[in-house]
Amino acid sequence: MRAAYLVEPRRVSILDVPVPEPGPGEVLVRVRAVGICRSDVHYYLHGRIGDTVMREPLIMGHEFAGELAVLGTGVTGPQVGDKVAVDPAISCGHCEMCLGGHPNLCRHIRFMSTPPDQGALAEYVLASAERCFELPPEMTFAEGAMLEPLGVALHSMRLAKLLIGDTVAVVGCGPIGLLILQLAQASGALDLAASDKLDYRLECARSYGASLAVNVQREDTQAAVAAFTAKRGMDIVFEAAGGSDTLEQAIRLARAGGTVILAGIPESDRLVMTAGTARRKGLTIKLVRRMKHTYPRAIALAAAGKVDLVGLVTHRLPLARVGEAFELAAAERDGVIKAVIEM
Amino acid sequence: MRAAYLVEPRRVSILDVPVPEPGPGEVLVRVRAVGICRSDVHYYLHGRIGDTVMREPLIMGHEFAGELAVLGTGVTGPQVGDKVAVDPAISCGHCEMCLGGHPNLCRHIRFMSTPPDQGALAEYVLASAERCFELPPEMTFAEGAMLEPLGVALHSMRLAKLLIGDTVAVVGCGPIGLLILQLAQASGALDLAASDKLDYRLECARSYGASLAVNVQREDTQAAVAAFTAKRGMDIVFEAAGGSDTLEQAIRLARAGGTVILAGIPESDRLVMTAGTARRKGLTIKLVRRMKHTYPRAIALAAAGKVDLVGLVTHRLPLARVGEAFELAAAERDGVIKAVIEM
Amino acid sequence: MRAAYLVEPRRVSILDVPVPEPGPGEVLVRVRAVGICRSDVHYYLHGRIGDTVMREPLIMGHEFAGELAVLGTGVTGPQVGDKVAVDPAISCGHCEMCLGGHPNLCRHIRFMSTPPDQGALAEYVLASAERCFELPPEMTFAEGAMLEPLGVALHSMRLAKLLIGDTVAVVGCGPIGLLILQLAQASGALDLAASDKLDYRLECARSYGASLAVNVQREDTQAAVAAFTAKRGMDIVFEAAGGSDTLEQAIRLARAGGTVILAGIPESDRLVMTAGTARRKGLTIKLVRRMKHTYPRAIALAAAGKVDLVGLVTHRLPLARVGEAFELAAAERDGVIKAVIEM
Amino acid sequence: MRAAYLVEPRRVSILDVPVPEPGPGEVLVRVRAVGICRSDVHYYLHGRIGDTVMREPLIMGHEFAGELAVLGTGVTGPQVGDKVAVDPAISCGHCEMCLGGHPNLCRHIRFMSTPPDQGALAEYVLASAERCFELPPEMTFAEGAMLEPLGVALHSMRLAKLLIGDTVAVVGCGPIGLLILQLAQASGALDLAASDKLDYRLECARSYGASLAVNVQREDTQAAVAAFTAKRGMDIVFEAAGGSDTLEQAIRLARAGGTVILAGIPESDRLVMTAGTARRKGLTIKLVRRMKHTYPRAIALAAAGKVDLVGLVTHRLPLARVGEAFELAAAERDGVIKAVIEM
Repeated sequence: MRAAYLVEPRRVSILDVPVPEPGPGEVLVRVRAVGICRSDVHYYLHGRIGDTVMREPLIMGHEFAGELAVLGTGVTGPQVGDKVAVDPAISCGHCEMCLGGHPNLCRHIRFMSTPPDQGALAEYVLASAERCFELPPEMTFAEGAMLEPLGVALHSMRLAKLLIGDTVAVVGCGPIGLLILQLAQASGALDLAASDKLDYRLECARSYGASLAVNVQREDTQAAVAAFTAKRGMDIVFEAAGGSDTLEQAIRLARAGGTVILAGIPESDRLVMTAGTARRKGLTIKLVRRMKHTYPRAIALAAAGKVDLVGLVTHRLPLARVGEAFELAAAERDGVIKAVIEM
Repeated sequence: MRAAYLVEPRRVSILDVPVPEPGPGEVLVRVRAVGICRSDVHYYLHGRIGDTVMREPLIMGHEFAGELAVLGTGVTGPQVGDKVAVDPAISCGHCEMCLGGHPNLCRHIRFMSTPPDQGALAEYVLASAERCFELPPEMTFAEGAMLEPLGVALHSMRLAKLLIGDTVAVVGCGPIGLLILQLAQASGALDLAASDKLDYRLECARSYGASLAVNVQREDTQAAVAAFTAKRGMDIVFEAAGGSDTLEQAIRLARAGGTVILAGIPESDRLVMTAGTARRKGLTIKLVRRMKHTYPRAIALAAAGKVDLVGLVTHRLPLARVGEAFELAAAERDGVIKAVIEM
Repeated sequence: MRAAYLVEPRRVSILDVPVPEPGPGEVLVRVRAVGICRSDVHYYLHGRIGDTVMREPLIMGHEFAGELAVLGTGVTGPQVGDKVAVDPAISCGHCEMCLGGHPNLCRHIRFMSTPPDQGALAEYVLASAERCFELPPEMTFAEGAMLEPLGVALHSMRLAKLLIGDTVAVVGCGPIGLLILQLAQASGALDLAASDKLDYRLECARSYGASLAVNVQREDTQAAVAAFTAKRGMDIVFEAAGGSDTLEQAIRLARAGGTVILAGIPESDRLVMTAGTARRKGLTIKLVRRMKHTYPRAIALAAAGKVDLVGLVTHRLPLARVGEAFELAAAERDGVIKAVIEM
Repeated sequence: MRAAYLVEPRRVSILDVPVPEPGPGEVLVRVRAVGICRSDVHYYLHGRIGDTVMREPLIMGHEFAGELAVLGTGVTGPQVGDKVAVDPAISCGHCEMCLGGHPNLCRHIRFMSTPPDQGALAEYVLASAERCFELPPEMTFAEGAMLEPLGVALHSMRLAKLLIGDTVAVVGCGPIGLLILQLAQASGALDLAASDKLDYRLECARSYGASLAVNVQREDTQAAVAAFTAKRGMDIVFEAAGGSDTLEQAIRLARAGGTVILAGIPESDRLVMTAGTARRKGLTIKLVRRMKHTYPRAIALAAAGKVDLVGLVTHRLPLARVGEAFELAAAERDGVIKAVIEM
């Protein structure tokens, strides 16, 4: 089978490798769509994320869907040919965090496309049957691949405990930010505001319900939100940009007693937090670490039409053009929101 | 001014009484619309609710909106002519519950139309300025009167902590039940189910998003919900009927680990609870006592179109026909959901 | 090995049966102490609890501790001779409830000594290694057996979200009630009150910190608590009696906005709830279903001396006198709080 | 009467000024004890805290107790001679935050000894009757003055939602840190750890229950806590130091899924937060802004002996030596924890 290996930063090779065989409880998935995630782009550009360093050629990609091709022994229920999305997180199931319902904080967690684990940019991948979730017939593979970022957005929403009528700002309108925005809108949030540096993303935010859309390169977000909310600030602010100053922005947009959800992956470990401002406001700040067992709910919401996944898939390319897809995602040009490799 | 007094069960007299004068911090409201609430109907039929007994002629009505007619001394901000809804709850503002943000549980609470306090079925009523909430220009007085039940529905929702994707059943499709249903739908709930004994109310529930609508006189709700949810049950069940067995029904519809919100006012203090079932499911049951400072959020949600109030107002009558309105509401006939007295 | 079988209500036979052999991942535990639980007494007296009926001779007992005697294949970590307590709940680990951290609500849960699963009143029992928790050297086997009711008490406390300074009443001073009382005291609760019908249990409650101890056969608990709290009522009330009217009592003792935890197993499924009172108070009622993965915390608290387990073990008998132990527990005489079979 | 005015940084003058007269609803309090708070020291040293600048001579002090000397009109209930502690926060009672039970986040809040409001280092001060809380007979005035920091510690605990058995670290052992430590111990916390740079404070922490006490100038706190907790980290970490790197320390000490409470007042608004670490742990960070209506509970806990206030009062000086008291508090020498001015 063909698999796309990152052999060094900015160099991807399509190699021919043996198709793996599923062990007991595992399935072989014929991969049909893989989304390019910002963390993939990080490895593509730098070969590392923080302390996690790629030490051998890496198959990237962890947002994906496909068809069941071969079932390992002991797999009952699923059928060959089933359309599935696959949760890329491999938690141990036995540690304190797993037993408490927090597999995202598992002490022994592994994650597809995070070294040393290989990812899904290949014609076939193995997965335990428990990590495969059947898709409804009308859902496309590209949408199936979008369930992973939707799951992260849903986990962010759960942490926020957003209730109908809460006012909401989203800092950063990449895929996660736009999914959070949609979920907030579908949850009955009011006075939705969004900020980004790219106009086409702000257009998209508006189409998903943002009443205020601020380009941070031209406008002062804090002033705009203050005017929009009669100086009150927002009940909940989602930071989904991962910039060096976006946590500070989020803190400034929140109301006294409000909540800030840090969903973006910070570029640097040493973020500045405007602690005095946050303290005077008595804020709660929660940091998002991937997601829990969120796939079933993500599928149900997408199937019910509560969230639009197709609209975020702006580019579709074949496996052969995977390098091009990465350059596009890295450059944030050509109106890219989410690029998907389709096979 | 004219005021409608309940002089004994089922006998209302329109009397001429002096217009009251606002004291410091008070306003005189020219009443324009008053909704007939089930608790009003209780007094109309029985002259009492539990231990609270009407001992002198009672002006009923506490769901209302009108115009500011006279401002007492020290009232700044509001203007004569302002269109307002009025919170009928008069909390002390100083007890432990008030200071803790729970005015609905105030130890010294008084409530309009609950003896010995008079209600709003009159041409003018007094209210403290703080209890008046300005309505947006496009909102009608009848909608303003509906803000009170909307507030109760919103408080029920807050207790439920409903998150997007939660599955929900509503037992009882009177005004509160239908408002809760709308709010659940607007909050991103999935698999909405509703039950009632009246078909026209179930029709209404369907129009507000219920995928399953069960007539309890013809169908077994538990079986229907079990089939609808593949035996899982609902994340959240709202009881909004106040019947002798509707708490039992609600407990049966909830999933293991689910939440039951008792929003209906029980006909009897001695409700049977299926404790063994509830215990095996590990349920949380919360009882709704009116609402907190909910008017601003209720207004914002109605103004944003997240909830339809007009559609629930099925009957509009003048003050002179108030007795007829009560008979209509008591009989639950002619497709009545909410009857409003308009002046 | 010898095992104590309930062959019909009130008749226990000690039979000789083969020692079982541990499969992969299992261990054989040499049982050293087994507590007699009220649910065991239920089967002893009636041969059933609600719909769960004993259809063949039943080994009772699920509160127990012992030594590891044989390790099955694949069991690493534990050693033969380790002193352990065993969690009697056997959850599937794969359903929605288990994955969400709620194994007590597992859809496929089995539980030792609940038909058709056999219990621990035998010289040896099998358990999966994951359900065994090592005891500190200074902890006795009888204390190890008490970890199960302690876990239930801890789960009740978790549901209550008791914070330092909360006022607390406990209705019912059996083992669970007295453990809850101790935990409340150790959590910084104030104004602890307790009620029961047996004076020796109230004495015990006083020794664990209850400032008010009410004998419900001689005094009016509601009046006593009202006087004790200047009519305010208690922040949190734990019902741990399972009587026909103890839920009603608990509701009467709670303050407005308070929480009632139903930890007792109700004798009848059709408990009366004073719904009007509970509604006017805006109460939250939570029902306790066994416990989550609570053993590690229970062990840590007992090891730290935050809770006294020894003092609750009032009677110790050998396996041969198991029938006598059941009669004693059933009759609630001779000052019995917890009877333990020691081997 | 005499009052201690800060006329410029590090210069306090005792001036003779008229005794004020209470208006309606107010009382005149004869001040008997005033604690020196770190925020007072800030004004003493710098004449400002952040943007809040002293523009005229300032009476410092807001932790205080005294006797009622004169009652204004309309004050009923309290009597002249009553021993009281006074809540120094003056919230409006009418804004969204006050009505919601969050007076500490009041939009119009004023606070004694924060410019332009004067403080309590005088022989008499005015207060609204509602802000006065009667002390039990056995409580000293110095203890009464300690109720203010105890209230802040209690509010920190409430935010933490500490449950029995949670493991806890406290970073910084000044008065707030030591009060939090005591409350954690009294709440049933396990494995209490504390860090500070001063040995005498660590001694004090040990005496209040800390099993691990780390001097940050000699030891690596993270390594010590990792060893103490078998690398797990702490369920809850309270930062009570306000240093430039203590938030970072707190984040490092927390377990995955844990909670960090920022109770210290940060020296700089631009604190560095190790965002990557906090994100991988999925932490919740809450910032403490003073307290809610916490005095009644603080009094009850102190009266019940759940917390020791006397032991923290290391220095007592008369009003004439107030400058000396400030120098002592500023220098953190002579074993000072809390210095109190007694009159």
